[in-house]
Amino acid sequence: MSDATIVKLNCPDAVGLLARLTGFVAERGGNLLEVHQFTDPESGWFFARMAVDSATLPGGLDGFRRDFLPLARDLRAEWSIRRESRRMRMVILVSKLPHCLGDLFLRWRLGDLPVEIPLVISNHADLEPLVAREGVPFLHVPVDPDRKEEAFRTIAAAARDAGADVLILARFMQILPEWLCAEFSGRILNIHHSFLPAFVGANPYRRAYERGVKLIGATCHYATPDLDQGPIIDQEVMRVEHSHGPEDLLRLGRDCERLALARGVRYHVTDRVLIHGSRTIVFKD
Amino acid sequence: MSDATIVKLNCPDAVGLLARLTGFVAERGGNLLEVHQFTDPESGWFFARMAVDSATLPGGLDGFRRDFLPLARDLRAEWSIRRESRRMRMVILVSKLPHCLGDLFLRWRLGDLPVEIPLVISNHADLEPLVAREGVPFLHVPVDPDRKEEAFRTIAAAARDAGADVLILARFMQILPEWLCAEFSGRILNIHHSFLPAFVGANPYRRAYERGVKLIGATCHYATPDLDQGPIIDQEVMRVEHSHGPEDLLRLGRDCERLALARGVRYHVTDRVLIHGSRTIVFKD
Amino acid sequence: MSDATIVKLNCPDAVGLLARLTGFVAERGGNLLEVHQFTDPESGWFFARMAVDSATLPGGLDGFRRDFLPLARDLRAEWSIRRESRRMRMVILVSKLPHCLGDLFLRWRLGDLPVEIPLVISNHADLEPLVAREGVPFLHVPVDPDRKEEAFRTIAAAARDAGADVLILARFMQILPEWLCAEFSGRILNIHHSFLPAFVGANPYRRAYERGVKLIGATCHYATPDLDQGPIIDQEVMRVEHSHGPEDLLRLGRDCERLALARGVRYHVTDRVLIHGSRTIVFKD
Amino acid sequence: MSDATIVKLNCPDAVGLLARLTGFVAERGGNLLEVHQFTDPESGWFFARMAVDSATLPGGLDGFRRDFLPLARDLRAEWSIRRESRRMRMVILVSKLPHCLGDLFLRWRLGDLPVEIPLVISNHADLEPLVAREGVPFLHVPVDPDRKEEAFRTIAAAARDAGADVLILARFMQILPEWLCAEFSGRILNIHHSFLPAFVGANPYRRAYERGVKLIGATCHYATPDLDQGPIIDQEVMRVEHSHGPEDLLRLGRDCERLALARGVRYHVTDRVLIHGSRTIVFKD
Repeated sequence: MSDATIVKLNCPDAVGLLARLTGFVAERGGNLLEVHQFTDPESGWFFARMAVDSATLPGGLDGFRRDFLPLARDLRAEWSIRRESRRMRMVILVSKLPHCLGDLFLRWRLGDLPVEIPLVISNHADLEPLVAREGVPFLHVPVDPDRKEEAFRTIAAAARDAGADVLILARFMQILPEWLCAEFSGRILNIHHSFLPAFVGANPYRRAYERGVKLIGATCHYATPDLDQGPIIDQEVMRVEHSHGPEDLLRLGRDCERLALARGVRYHVTDRVLIHGSRTIVFKD
Repeated sequence: MSDATIVKLNCPDAVGLLARLTGFVAERGGNLLEVHQFTDPESGWFFARMAVDSATLPGGLDGFRRDFLPLARDLRAEWSIRRESRRMRMVILVSKLPHCLGDLFLRWRLGDLPVEIPLVISNHADLEPLVAREGVPFLHVPVDPDRKEEAFRTIAAAARDAGADVLILARFMQILPEWLCAEFSGRILNIHHSFLPAFVGANPYRRAYERGVKLIGATCHYATPDLDQGPIIDQEVMRVEHSHGPEDLLRLGRDCERLALARGVRYHVTDRVLIHGSRTIVFKD
Repeated sequence: MSDATIVKLNCPDAVGLLARLTGFVAERGGNLLEVHQFTDPESGWFFARMAVDSATLPGGLDGFRRDFLPLARDLRAEWSIRRESRRMRMVILVSKLPHCLGDLFLRWRLGDLPVEIPLVISNHADLEPLVAREGVPFLHVPVDPDRKEEAFRTIAAAARDAGADVLILARFMQILPEWLCAEFSGRILNIHHSFLPAFVGANPYRRAYERGVKLIGATCHYATPDLDQGPIIDQEVMRVEHSHGPEDLLRLGRDCERLALARGVRYHVTDRVLIHGSRTIVFKD
Repeated sequence: MSDATIVKLNCPDAVGLLARLTGFVAERGGNLLEVHQFTDPESGWFFARMAVDSATLPGGLDGFRRDFLPLARDLRAEWSIRRESRRMRMVILVSKLPHCLGDLFLRWRLGDLPVEIPLVISNHADLEPLVAREGVPFLHVPVDPDRKEEAFRTIAAAARDAGADVLILARFMQILPEWLCAEFSGRILNIHHSFLPAFVGANPYRRAYERGVKLIGATCHYATPDLDQGPIIDQEVMRVEHSHGPEDLLRLGRDCERLALARGVRYHVTDRVLIHGSRTIVFKD
């Protein structure tokens, strides 16, 4: 089966950058399947993602990485090179609401999310049956308000043991401690149930109802210690009318949440997102 | 030509309300062209809009109003009855940006906005030619930061003289004094260039860019003394990508502004909006 | 728990119709929770849906129906009266694709689809595990091209035995015989994977790709003997780009299909759809 | 003021293509402002657009073109190189409907459409005042059904005399003769008032109403001798409800038409569209 080697990179902009990068691949006979690049004129920064047919890189992944090192250093680049076939390991954190988790499972089974799911962690036992029937291990870690730190130590240890590349907060409803955000920086995705920056914090649907907005939405973003302030990956909105009460907003919003989270997760696990300060560069497929 | 008599009403909910209202019309032989009603279970409030074929109301507008009075009093209703053919007089306030004004003119000429436009007022002279060629009077009232009050007295007097039923702030860029908001309460429409409540205040596109949102938008709302807090009539959003710089957001946002404002204005001038606290009931056509 | 009695009705338009209907409810002390009505000026036809608090109808459902009969006859109305608490029995027909079925199950478990699901029928065995784990009976009826009629007799008998109020074709991929469409007329919902009337028939995504459209979509409609010509209940679209190949359209289209089908089903099973020739009146919630 | 040199190119795909193209620019010290490329795996074809800072190309446009020629030949490429500052000359054809024309003028005045408009041609005199007040020449060419050929000869001659780079059919309502489509192949943009391929031909809104669709739309496409079959550049849709009659669809559809046409025109006149058979590659900004 075909496999792609994914190069992700960002560095200060310079004349001839793309020529050097694509030239590097071409010199090795690498066949580019997909190239995305973007130069941000505001910050003078360059971003690229290249997908190379792995079969056309005779030196293998390690050889390619070794060869790339001097170039990357010269460009002062932050970079990663990964085989698509080495799927990310995604650990999902949930509370009691099943819709985002159920939706991720559905897409996973369809092949839309190329990941391993080694573990689901929850502070409640409610969703255990939903997880069990997918054959995925479930860990129940109650988060006692007085012993939060301990709970999060347990959660972090479990995520590490599961070899987590990425954590998904699928309506987890708990604020992560700073050290956990730091440890998995750029690798924790949250779904917030509003079109951020509107309705940061608790009860966004209720507040949306009270403000009388004509749109509701959801935002998939990277979790940072500042609540709901992390870089946004994707957003989804839906029109609502005066006749929609708070319960209707909850119901309609679920579709926004499912769509925004599913797209955000897909972009992340296929190495299509680069973080740049408070913004993201998303090379969509 | 056919004409409709529009009844707008809101009152405390009660059993049999709609039956009484529609019964009142039926007893007089009135032919209902369109009925909208909504009961808000949260507040126990009832809202309705009825369009009656004027030709089927033999007593004329005054007779119909007189007959309606006891019923309205009994229901403790806030209400209005208006002939569609008596078009609202709409005074538009602008600064230097032509896109919203130009768009309103275009729709007005197409017959999509059934209003009179007796006057356009601006704190700058830039848009005078655009207004003049439509044959609409233009009043230039510079708003000197030190003599704002005086300027707004002039503006209000001109609006009164023009017989304004409604004021449209088509990117007017000035905060109205409280007394003016009060005088035209529920009759001043503003277009804000963000999907409120996100980015209240100045420079929303710049702040949207910096926050890295994946949607931009615009909000048409009633102006109140609390900046950008008035009841929302309509909103519009558009997807943006990382490649869109601040200038692109300005450009793309113009379409959101034009659409949200045009719809909001149309709903208002066709008596389709009822204000209820911070929310609006919009009986769309 | 509260329950609503749903009156659905359509008849020739006449002056005073809504007054008579709401008056009928009011005279019996019925508390209207929700009213929707629409008069089609093109055909001179009237459509209404009223939700009455069942607790305020002392005569019970049968009494209410009996009382309503003379009025309905007088209006020459087609009508139904149903208790919300008497959930429709929904039989789902599928082939091999799980996304629509899985999505319906997810919403059903969340309480968004107030139905019973007594049976899932498929011409393939693939989805049996997905159905079994929901505790829903699964019937495998292979549809041999040479013995289609026999297969559909079996399917129809099973649906009847299950007490089906409505059949959902959740990507069933088989054309129903005319007699089956007739037997369940107005009670079979299909999801077609294009924004009809574009791409009627087979392989719509492939043809959409070849035509180079910039939008793909899905349509939930009532099944009729004329393939893909039945009255449309809801549609959903999504933007696509030149970079999306046929496989991407399949993937992205799944979200359109899931959303359009879920909304269509919800409208139908909550008695919010009235069919009028080739059009539907949908009183959305 | 800054200027960009735009290179547009398509050719058979090959390993190292992008490296050669960007290398060519880099060797000359050219600073790439923007690069877009796309490889179509279905057809094995490569498409690119590069924007180079003109100030960094010391040999000027002619020198750059001359240098590029051998490379382009070697790649068997179809290509163009153009200075952004050399604005396209856009001739607009209209009938009686002003909304698309008025919208194009509005965007032109705002600077969103970087073109010259040397001429507007119409088969009716109605829009002459709208054109005159923009200071744009207006040519009235009645299209007599019996003498169509003659009329189109006149139209073509006027377009040629005006130095037209592109023709815009802004609701022109006439079918162009084949020879005219051929002469301006890939340079005539039409706006069709449906989401093609639905409702090809006349009266799409009426037919959309009769079919009972829940979405209406508009399509901007290149005109070809096969009516409404040309490559699609952009499409726009809007939700409609059962309450929208044929007149409402006309009104709501105007916004779809304006938006789809405006975007399509902008993409074309900024050299962002490449045609590939019946499909377009659109490198959006």
